[in-house]
Amino acid sequence: MWVYGQIIDRYATDGYNSPKPTLEIIKEAKESGLSGLDLNYPWPEKDLTPKEVKAALDGSNLNAVCVTPVIYGQKFRSGSFSNADASLRNDAIALSEESVDVANQLGADYVKWWPGQDGYDYPFQVDYKQLREYALGGIRAVAKNNPKTQFAIEYKLKEPRNRLLWSTANASLINIAEVGVDNLGLVIDFGHSLFAKENPAEALSLIHSQGKLVDIELDDNYREWDDDLTAGAIHLVETLEFLYTVEKIGWKSPIKLDLFPYRENAMSAVKESIKTLQKLEACLDRIDMSALGKAQNAHDAMAIQAIVRDVLIA
Amino acid sequence: MWVYGQIIDRYATDGYNSPKPTLEIIKEAKESGLSGLDLNYPWPEKDLTPKEVKAALDGSNLNAVCVTPVIYGQKFRSGSFSNADASLRNDAIALSEESVDVANQLGADYVKWWPGQDGYDYPFQVDYKQLREYALGGIRAVAKNNPKTQFAIEYKLKEPRNRLLWSTANASLINIAEVGVDNLGLVIDFGHSLFAKENPAEALSLIHSQGKLVDIELDDNYREWDDDLTAGAIHLVETLEFLYTVEKIGWKSPIKLDLFPYRENAMSAVKESIKTLQKLEACLDRIDMSALGKAQNAHDAMAIQAIVRDVLIA
Amino acid sequence: MWVYGQIIDRYATDGYNSPKPTLEIIKEAKESGLSGLDLNYPWPEKDLTPKEVKAALDGSNLNAVCVTPVIYGQKFRSGSFSNADASLRNDAIALSEESVDVANQLGADYVKWWPGQDGYDYPFQVDYKQLREYALGGIRAVAKNNPKTQFAIEYKLKEPRNRLLWSTANASLINIAEVGVDNLGLVIDFGHSLFAKENPAEALSLIHSQGKLVDIELDDNYREWDDDLTAGAIHLVETLEFLYTVEKIGWKSPIKLDLFPYRENAMSAVKESIKTLQKLEACLDRIDMSALGKAQNAHDAMAIQAIVRDVLIA
Amino acid sequence: MWVYGQIIDRYATDGYNSPKPTLEIIKEAKESGLSGLDLNYPWPEKDLTPKEVKAALDGSNLNAVCVTPVIYGQKFRSGSFSNADASLRNDAIALSEESVDVANQLGADYVKWWPGQDGYDYPFQVDYKQLREYALGGIRAVAKNNPKTQFAIEYKLKEPRNRLLWSTANASLINIAEVGVDNLGLVIDFGHSLFAKENPAEALSLIHSQGKLVDIELDDNYREWDDDLTAGAIHLVETLEFLYTVEKIGWKSPIKLDLFPYRENAMSAVKESIKTLQKLEACLDRIDMSALGKAQNAHDAMAIQAIVRDVLIA
Repeated sequence: MWVYGQIIDRYATDGYNSPKPTLEIIKEAKESGLSGLDLNYPWPEKDLTPKEVKAALDGSNLNAVCVTPVIYGQKFRSGSFSNADASLRNDAIALSEESVDVANQLGADYVKWWPGQDGYDYPFQVDYKQLREYALGGIRAVAKNNPKTQFAIEYKLKEPRNRLLWSTANASLINIAEVGVDNLGLVIDFGHSLFAKENPAEALSLIHSQGKLVDIELDDNYREWDDDLTAGAIHLVETLEFLYTVEKIGWKSPIKLDLFPYRENAMSAVKESIKTLQKLEACLDRIDMSALGKAQNAHDAMAIQAIVRDVLIA
Repeated sequence: MWVYGQIIDRYATDGYNSPKPTLEIIKEAKESGLSGLDLNYPWPEKDLTPKEVKAALDGSNLNAVCVTPVIYGQKFRSGSFSNADASLRNDAIALSEESVDVANQLGADYVKWWPGQDGYDYPFQVDYKQLREYALGGIRAVAKNNPKTQFAIEYKLKEPRNRLLWSTANASLINIAEVGVDNLGLVIDFGHSLFAKENPAEALSLIHSQGKLVDIELDDNYREWDDDLTAGAIHLVETLEFLYTVEKIGWKSPIKLDLFPYRENAMSAVKESIKTLQKLEACLDRIDMSALGKAQNAHDAMAIQAIVRDVLIA
Repeated sequence: MWVYGQIIDRYATDGYNSPKPTLEIIKEAKESGLSGLDLNYPWPEKDLTPKEVKAALDGSNLNAVCVTPVIYGQKFRSGSFSNADASLRNDAIALSEESVDVANQLGADYVKWWPGQDGYDYPFQVDYKQLREYALGGIRAVAKNNPKTQFAIEYKLKEPRNRLLWSTANASLINIAEVGVDNLGLVIDFGHSLFAKENPAEALSLIHSQGKLVDIELDDNYREWDDDLTAGAIHLVETLEFLYTVEKIGWKSPIKLDLFPYRENAMSAVKESIKTLQKLEACLDRIDMSALGKAQNAHDAMAIQAIVRDVLIA
Repeated sequence: MWVYGQIIDRYATDGYNSPKPTLEIIKEAKESGLSGLDLNYPWPEKDLTPKEVKAALDGSNLNAVCVTPVIYGQKFRSGSFSNADASLRNDAIALSEESVDVANQLGADYVKWWPGQDGYDYPFQVDYKQLREYALGGIRAVAKNNPKTQFAIEYKLKEPRNRLLWSTANASLINIAEVGVDNLGLVIDFGHSLFAKENPAEALSLIHSQGKLVDIELDDNYREWDDDLTAGAIHLVETLEFLYTVEKIGWKSPIKLDLFPYRENAMSAVKESIKTLQKLEACLDRIDMSALGKAQNAHDAMAIQAIVRDVLIA
């Protein structure tokens, strides 16, 4: 929903565009060619019921992919599950429980956490063990209390906080092992993975092989920040390898887009991303998989460059 | 004024704190121990006159360091002087002229531009020569039209746009040479310089030796983003070398702070920064300048580490 | 031993200094004030026996901290345990077994692997699952075959290869869990941790809490490469926090230095590092631990800046 | 010649391959499909005369693109023109003069400096003004003494030194202005430009518009180091934009490759790079330049993504 909603940053505090009502966003999403939506909860309209949202989604033939509790706004600016203040830690848990309920009403696939304030900013600022206990403890409590609900964390290296606990694929897998529940997995975002200094295809392969893959998002950036550019705008080869890996691991669910079109028309950004991804998917079909496998077994980078060039460049 | 005003980002769109009236900010600035303020124009209150602001500053015994036209908000989100739309380019010029007038009324030392939207986001997006002509042409027009006013650009590698024209000290010096006026210089921000992959002390030395130094700002970050942490929070050695260079070039004006205390009390952030800087200034007094000069002439890094350690670490 | 040996890079292929015999390096290490050495094996002198090296160490009252098989030179340039060539994978295992034997003869504390060639360079170059199986399988084989020997991996984000399998603290902990043996842990290098975009103190705390800490190394860099500068040259606050954490987790063993003094006198680089670290250790003694704990419990960054400033800055 | 010569780094000090005689490298370059060579001077064979090299080049129908004095090896490890030692500064000048002579004998297009040791490593290590005077003074002396010779600097952000004086396109243009001669320009290397946080196409456009473009090199990397991967391996869109800009500015000379195939066959690396570049050149021919110009005038990133996708992706 971020794609279509109002975008603000610390300089353009009057926004890059105008705010839009939730029901209108649902309509616009359908027109862009999407099949599902990630819904932030609570939505801005206080009197809008889950039932009404469900009806609007159904009317547009859209799936509620997930419900994402807003644990990163003003209230939780100094931490959600890991806040120094016990009452705010409890509020993060309560809002998560509420989101489970909403997700159930909407028939959403999972509840997504993006703990973008769970971390710290300065050296010496926190006791790391205690911070982890808080951050993982809150998540453990909610996940254990709702054993039939699938939960997922979307990891990101940093922003808004300078240091986040769910920073990389590996950090998140370590955290999940420490949480110790079965219904918690990960959302991998291609751009977050680049930003985390990972190769997204390798991270995707790892998360899947550990049985923790819940969802996949696409976008692009310059590797140094979560720029949320349109998919395929910069890293064509790595996006192709990412899609190749999606296929290789047998992933069948639709892939999500996570864009922040500050200055572009949101619908155009979504459409151009989809067209680029479709063209890349078509490239995949032309790969001689046997030749590729042979070159990969030999770690032969030059043979691989030839194979990729042949299918990718017009 | 950013330090004290409301802070918002793309996630906490409801703000990290509450908005404050301009006159209250002026009061709070004084209490923090500042001697001057950088004023963004237009200020939020439409009916507040420059005269009233001047009176408030005088009443608090504060200097108007500079007036900064807001050429980076919603209106100019796709560029100010470099916008593809000629009428917006003209609006950026008009707002700058208005800011000159306000600066004169407030007795400000200079008019500061921060062209944070003048650049681009995607490869192929712009014709670079045309973009430069627009961006530099607008600045040339205003500077030539107000030959008695001092202007300054605050450079930054990126953000909000992914690529900015006034990105580094050297890029800005090249731009200034191309603008070709005498009343345009630079504001160096310690954190922007780190973010631009510069050594701030070297950049300061260069800008000064080219006669283009107008003002100096301090803060800190992790070198990968403009985190606007408190001064001295991370880079003590480089902050010390920066202050040493300020002294070496004979700079006498007060130094500014450029902080974004998202989660901290603004007044505390300013006070802690000032205390740290004062302590570092005291360290400088203990340096044996003759020994340092000798070590520098020999490029003797190990002798220098000993000298710095002796004066800096307690 | 790298500190004292000959340093070469891809440009100065004639070396930054002259090569030195192993026995002379042992002598020089003692004179610099070190208490132990990390020995690369095989050493350059083919006829030098472990017995002779042991005698030299004893004569200098030096401990053999660890033996590090050279699995990153010309022979293993395309991978050691993960090489596409099975015979080279076996050679990496054989050299490791030999190093276990040498370590036993020298009475070394552990055998250290630095798998700096185990990874890849290009997108699509390898099958990630296969690469992991090779890389972890070889290590598992050696560790299982020598259950009484302690092994440790020194992780690093990259270099020489562009992508390494043992890249970060978290990646390494995931790898160790997958290897599934008890006698394999980690060496944390302060500079590698900075380069991996970690906060070294947090990474140290995590590795220790998972029971996988084997050794600690110090140095410094600009966060973007493994520059191997002298300890405390840049990141004083984070080095102090790292030493504080060493104390907090109750670590008693001597800390190692990992420097590459390309242009400096090696003995000076070691001495200056030690002096800086000793001064920082003394700062720690002055911290009011109760006040620090209280500020950390409140995540109060400004209170912490005051505490750190008071004990650290002269 | 680096592509074909022996590659060493600080770990694989025994080299990634075997050293090759200069005359053999010339032969191999021809076979890879190159039309010219960049020759490092002095070459390793002490008794090999320029006349013999010239004959070998002529025999292979190869052009001597430039002669590059080796001012970055052991001797000059602490600086060439900027060395603290006056006699080494003079040696850098003398070797440059000798290279001019060799360039004349070989009929080379220009003499190239790569001052990879002219800079510093630690804060406080040097007096920046003095360092600049030395570094620029030596270059000025040689350029003035040989007014008919074209000189060029190849800039790079860092490595081997942590801080270099010829770091970015803009820094180099400022330096050239300060040198104040007409026969000094720049070599832009695509990968160095990425590493310097530039957009290479924009940097190329700027250098050309300032009349300082002497030569162009291609390769690729991950933006964080000078990895010297094969051209087009990662950044296809930006390589395409770079080639588009080469055409736009009307550059007719052959483009060079600057690769470091540590683990690959050098001839394959060159051939794959050339094939990829040729395919990208063919994409350029299909761009509707009028539509592109219109989209660029409107800064319309989404229209541009459609245009680029259509010609680039198969």
